[in-house]
Amino acid sequence: MLIVKKFGGTSVANKERIYNVARRCIDEYQKGNDVVVILSAMGKMTDELIEMAKNINHNPSKREMDMLLTTGEQTSVALAAMAFDALGVPAISLNAFQVAMHTTSNYSNARLKRIDTERIRHELDQRKIVIVTGFQGINKYGDYTTLGRGGSDTTAVALAAALKADACEIYTDVDGVYTADPRIVRNAKKLTEITYDEMLDLATLGAGVLHNRSVEMAKKYGVQLVVRSSLTNEEGTVLKEEVKVERMLISGVASDKNCAKISVVGLSDKPGTAFRLFDALASANINVDMILQSVGRDNTQDIAFTVVGDYADDAVKVIEDNKSRLKYQKLECEKGVAKVSIVGAGMMSNPGVAAKMFECLYNSNINIKMISTSEIRVTVLIDEKEVEKAVNAAHDIFGLAD
Amino acid sequence: MLIVKKFGGTSVANKERIYNVARRCIDEYQKGNDVVVILSAMGKMTDELIEMAKNINHNPSKREMDMLLTTGEQTSVALAAMAFDALGVPAISLNAFQVAMHTTSNYSNARLKRIDTERIRHELDQRKIVIVTGFQGINKYGDYTTLGRGGSDTTAVALAAALKADACEIYTDVDGVYTADPRIVRNAKKLTEITYDEMLDLATLGAGVLHNRSVEMAKKYGVQLVVRSSLTNEEGTVLKEEVKVERMLISGVASDKNCAKISVVGLSDKPGTAFRLFDALASANINVDMILQSVGRDNTQDIAFTVVGDYADDAVKVIEDNKSRLKYQKLECEKGVAKVSIVGAGMMSNPGVAAKMFECLYNSNINIKMISTSEIRVTVLIDEKEVEKAVNAAHDIFGLAD
Repeated sequence: MLIVKKFGGTSVANKERIYNVARRCIDEYQKGNDVVVILSAMGKMTDELIEMAKNINHNPSKREMDMLLTTGEQTSVALAAMAFDALGVPAISLNAFQVAMHTTSNYSNARLKRIDTERIRHELDQRKIVIVTGFQGINKYGDYTTLGRGGSDTTAVALAAALKADACEIYTDVDGVYTADPRIVRNAKKLTEITYDEMLDLATLGAGVLHNRSVEMAKKYGVQLVVRSSLTNEEGTVLKEEVKVERMLISGVASDKNCAKISVVGLSDKPGTAFRLFDALASANINVDMILQSVGRDNTQDIAFTVVGDYADDAVKVIEDNKSRLKYQKLECEKGVAKVSIVGAGMMSNPGVAAKMFECLYNSNINIKMISTSEIRVTVLIDEKEVEKAVNAAHDIFGLAD
Repeated sequence: MLIVKKFGGTSVANKERIYNVARRCIDEYQKGNDVVVILSAMGKMTDELIEMAKNINHNPSKREMDMLLTTGEQTSVALAAMAFDALGVPAISLNAFQVAMHTTSNYSNARLKRIDTERIRHELDQRKIVIVTGFQGINKYGDYTTLGRGGSDTTAVALAAALKADACEIYTDVDGVYTADPRIVRNAKKLTEITYDEMLDLATLGAGVLHNRSVEMAKKYGVQLVVRSSLTNEEGTVLKEEVKVERMLISGVASDKNCAKISVVGLSDKPGTAFRLFDALASANINVDMILQSVGRDNTQDIAFTVVGDYADDAVKVIEDNKSRLKYQKLECEKGVAKVSIVGAGMMSNPGVAAKMFECLYNSNINIKMISTSEIRVTVLIDEKEVEKAVNAAHDIFGLAD
């Protein structure tokens, strides 16, 4: 078997943890498996490098920033190789140039295009553990790029796909995917299995265990992903195309607090109104999340949408700056709101799930400000202060702790 | 004109110094010149990386050590590029992979074989200042290597040769090559010019300004090297094939304290005796410096040689371990001795220089333990305690301060 294992920055933050990572990999290796390890930069190293850069130049170029940041993972993999060596197991570290991790050309947020596996296979054939820098790639100019948020997860999944690995294990500081955030729901349960689509919805909705780019890629290439703890030996959560065990209607409840709702009231009800509004926001690099459009009075329409809380003021400014083009009557911004979502592939064949969600919120006396649904998800926007109550109520009514 | 400028670790140790380096390079650039900058790792960074490695593994593999150490120069060049950018001058950083600095395959002490100049020329054509990592290369396996001591000087000279640069300037914390160490000789004078050969003898003999590999390479490829200070704007010392100005007999006086003299007395006077002795030492990786062979009594010979003081005990052990093969009567080791040398191309056409040297030492009451000469150098071995007196006496008698 060929296993790809990815460890984040906290897992390699110091000598003891690097040795812990090495020992876990050696266990796998000594069963006769081939092991490829993906590492992030140690602990706070990326943050420290960013600070060094900002000290030199408040607005460093992305190309040079990537040149600087890639030293972080290279440090991790070299030190890890030394730890394997000290434990008597042959290992070799490789960076993005050595593997040849081809990406798109945009610095700081590149996408992986093609991975050469020749060097890795050559080293595996010699029974070495291969340690690869996560997060980084090279572009067509022969320059370093980085993959943006969740980049090392993406490296791991892409390498697992390219190597046709039998499994790709993502080690984090939690031991798997839960039915809800255990800090919010006392009796949240760890899921042994979850589908890619459910995980995608959970990731997007702030469950924070895996970045959605890596889940999308795993789904696309059929990589069997496992999320597990780097600190315990417990089984984690397996991501699959289809979950075979008998399942609850709902897999989990997710919440995301940092939201703001912006309402644009009395827009003229003509074609192109929504386009102009969201085009202005997109041009200002503001990501819009939930969107609700409704017909207003006297040939007008109202559009409400949510953005990440930090961007609320920017969004308001963009709309005000475009008032003459957009022609609206009133602009409202409500901060301190939150999304609560129930996610589950079982929803598709079971009508009435949304109704049950709304009923439970009504019973808890929670006011719903907006609703958005997909085939496997129901999301409501509520007051931030009521998130704990709402998540617990949903978790209970769908019997997730049973 | 195309100018290669090399700055060492102390010259880029912090923000202010990095900006100082950038400003000096911009002065050159704004005269319309093309500028290629070679940087070492910042200040103590290489030492810190070595300590990190030793903390993980007392005896880290050289391959992984090079993988770790190369992050040092990459950090320097990325930060320097950010400083140029902040000063409004286009610049780009390149590492050994991006330039394609091909070396021999041996890690930690590789030799440069071939440098691709295409990428550098492409960037220079766009009027960018090109900042290149010193000290590092890539070998035929596609792995990082490092060039050993004085490696960044070698990178600079090799790049200057490959690019056919008009000058290669090595910036250090001294402002040139002196007639003697100014810490020893109060009235030592800076040389405006010196020949490669003289510099080679001075470098080998502990003048410590330039590593001899870089001087050898400059001589071989006819690179005009300049040694100057990164802190002042003074003219430095120019290295040339021939020095045209009227010259003193002697260019400088060099000294090297950390020596030991080992005497092997009563070796059988047969062919192969010297070979067996020095082969045994070479096999133990002990470098031998001065060698003196003399005929002893009763068909025996005596061989005396010097080694770096730190290797004296190892050398004695090797010889004792081989006593049965080497067949000698007595082994003596004298620590606390030092080499003092006078160097000068003028010596070749002026007999009597050596005699003048011996006379001045005699007048100073200094006992000579060994003598070694070349066409442009006279070296004597004396007691370590008398180095200051000897260097000053030689500096005076040859009129170097005049």
